[in-house]
Amino acid sequence: VDGRCVSVAYMEKIWHHDALWEEGNEEGYDAAHWNSSSQSHPPWLRFHLGISRWQLYDHKDPNLRQLEEQLAFSRIVSAVQKTGGTQLKLLMSFPNYGQALFKPMKQERNEETNHNLYYFSDFERHNAEIAAYHLDRILGFRRIPPVVGRLIDMVKEIKDITTDRKLARTFFTSPVGNTCFYGQCSYYCSTEHAVCGRPHVLEASLAVMLPDLSLAPRRSWRSPWRRSYSRSKLAQWENNAKYCESVKKSPPYSQGTRLVDLIDMAILDFLMSNMDRHHYETFEKFGNNTFLLHLDNGRAFGRHSKDEPSILAPLVQCCRIRRSTLLKLQLLALPQYRLSDVMRASLSRDPLTSIAPLLSEQHLTALDRRLVTVLKKLRRCQEQYNDSVIYNDIPGHLNFGL
Amino acid sequence: VDGRCVSVAYMEKIWHHDALWEEGNEEGYDAAHWNSSSQSHPPWLRFHLGISRWQLYDHKDPNLRQLEEQLAFSRIVSAVQKTGGTQLKLLMSFPNYGQALFKPMKQERNEETNHNLYYFSDFERHNAEIAAYHLDRILGFRRIPPVVGRLIDMVKEIKDITTDRKLARTFFTSPVGNTCFYGQCSYYCSTEHAVCGRPHVLEASLAVMLPDLSLAPRRSWRSPWRRSYSRSKLAQWENNAKYCESVKKSPPYSQGTRLVDLIDMAILDFLMSNMDRHHYETFEKFGNNTFLLHLDNGRAFGRHSKDEPSILAPLVQCCRIRRSTLLKLQLLALPQYRLSDVMRASLSRDPLTSIAPLLSEQHLTALDRRLVTVLKKLRRCQEQYNDSVIYNDIPGHLNFGL
Repeated sequence: VDGRCVSVAYMEKIWHHDALWEEGNEEGYDAAHWNSSSQSHPPWLRFHLGISRWQLYDHKDPNLRQLEEQLAFSRIVSAVQKTGGTQLKLLMSFPNYGQALFKPMKQERNEETNHNLYYFSDFERHNAEIAAYHLDRILGFRRIPPVVGRLIDMVKEIKDITTDRKLARTFFTSPVGNTCFYGQCSYYCSTEHAVCGRPHVLEASLAVMLPDLSLAPRRSWRSPWRRSYSRSKLAQWENNAKYCESVKKSPPYSQGTRLVDLIDMAILDFLMSNMDRHHYETFEKFGNNTFLLHLDNGRAFGRHSKDEPSILAPLVQCCRIRRSTLLKLQLLALPQYRLSDVMRASLSRDPLTSIAPLLSEQHLTALDRRLVTVLKKLRRCQEQYNDSVIYNDIPGHLNFGL
Repeated sequence: VDGRCVSVAYMEKIWHHDALWEEGNEEGYDAAHWNSSSQSHPPWLRFHLGISRWQLYDHKDPNLRQLEEQLAFSRIVSAVQKTGGTQLKLLMSFPNYGQALFKPMKQERNEETNHNLYYFSDFERHNAEIAAYHLDRILGFRRIPPVVGRLIDMVKEIKDITTDRKLARTFFTSPVGNTCFYGQCSYYCSTEHAVCGRPHVLEASLAVMLPDLSLAPRRSWRSPWRRSYSRSKLAQWENNAKYCESVKKSPPYSQGTRLVDLIDMAILDFLMSNMDRHHYETFEKFGNNTFLLHLDNGRAFGRHSKDEPSILAPLVQCCRIRRSTLLKLQLLALPQYRLSDVMRASLSRDPLTSIAPLLSEQHLTALDRRLVTVLKKLRRCQEQYNDSVIYNDIPGHLNFGL
């Protein structure tokens, strides 16, 4: 009964919200207006209600900590496989009707991706999902839904409670007595790639779910800088240095912030070495003038010893950047706000840090090194194009010049 | 023309040989009789002609070194996939019509098999094939066809010369520029498990082929101590401590050396921790009184830190052993003939040793540790059954007692 009430209240809120989204709330999150911090709502609902045209949550949102705590500690009442995508993931539900996307730990954190693997056959990493959320937040984007790490009891929190028979059938005990399962999916769902606990405790990432697609439909956009997903073919942007000229002329990149948003995403992806950004999504009701969702970051942070310059192609080929992003990057390059230090501190609030650091020091060092590369590329852009490089997204009175 | 002559000569030899096999040659290899050491024959043919009822080659066979050199250095004129079995292997041919079975390196030598993998989904290891051949020879069995390690140029020695289009189609260049291929097979033949060179040089094992099945047909026997090949079921021998009583009464184990031969094989497998001995083979023309071929040892030497006592079940449950095997084991437990030292010295003659030791020191140490375990089990057998434990396969005048 309680649950049904939450659901009904949620529906009403969303529709109400929806109507207002259509009319106004252009400037982002407004707690007073939406009462989305109301203690009567569970954290996941407050999160949903707080989503604005320009970001998923406010940078001072007091609900964030509560949401993370719910993901980390709330009882799991259901766990079923989530279809779509190529690798195993589960949809988990909490007593207050919140839901989270579960991705299991598959490899040790100091293991580097085999350099002979193509980006499209790399494993997904639970710690990459967590670290990407922190990095996106530190960069001031707030375009990745909150993700926390959690130790899961595979027997009590998955096997015993699941109603998904296909999932349950894939559980087995390994030769050394560990509980394992592999689920059903198109990649790596087989005995040879089973996910195993120690003996039944498993590290995983839990990402809060976005509002249901029926309530807040999303649009998926093919990235203009998408890779070929072929071992032999190159993408158009890889052969044509003037590729950005044509992108700049095509809607939706020809107006508004879409192009600089795409470049923000490229910078995020370069820093964490994510080559797998084939699509991005937006909330349909915000039209073309809205932020880009950075979903699915499991293939980031696979290698710390090598950088992948091609990820920066949108920046290098277009030579554009939001002023706010540039300022943030410059700040994080200063010794007193060094990106690696801010990341280390931020990640330390994740519950899994008590087991082991979520990113090894090598990965943190790689972040600083890559940040220097981004700033170098920007300097070269400014030498070539002067002021036209900077997209001024900061109101006049806050504009001190660069 | 030359090749056809070799082939015709080979056929004639084999049929001649065959006829004599039927009549006599019970006592094994006889170089003078067979002229199998004749310099007019290539080493592989001399190897085939030297196979006797009781062993694949003589312990002083001068042809062995020449055969190993042919496998290691002879030009490769053809490479095609070999069907059968679950993992990728190639059949390679030499200018003198010799043939070898190729298995590629798939993992680093210090990598231990993931302890959550079942024996039936473990990778095959090229160095295990090589080390098994040396161990079998050191134990005096001589039931594994010679195997050597070799560096292969994947482009010149496979891709450029293969007539196997299905194989050629699976070649690709990895993101870091290494040549890779994966072939077609039921396990691990996919991009994710590609075999890659550095950049196109690959370590592999080459095992000499046995005489063609049309000339020397073989019989495959299901091992009475075969594992269940299921994650949940146990085999009969795992539940029944008196299992050997029934085996002892059933032909062909009820007479001759078949039972002690099987126990020899179990000792070999325990020493190298091979759990994958589901079948063994014999040459049909020798009937039931003949040695057992120890083929397919790629899943041995997967773990050095753990022993697998169940592999010794035939010995523990039957408490029988050939006197010659016991003497050999006792010798190899002496400090001056320590098994690990003899193995290290023997493996050092393999060409791949120049790259890295074929077995890590941990694997060599495990051999000594496991040998002690075998001797302990035998002592317990002797305490229980006295003299009936030893099957006396040594002629009287060489019999000094134990």
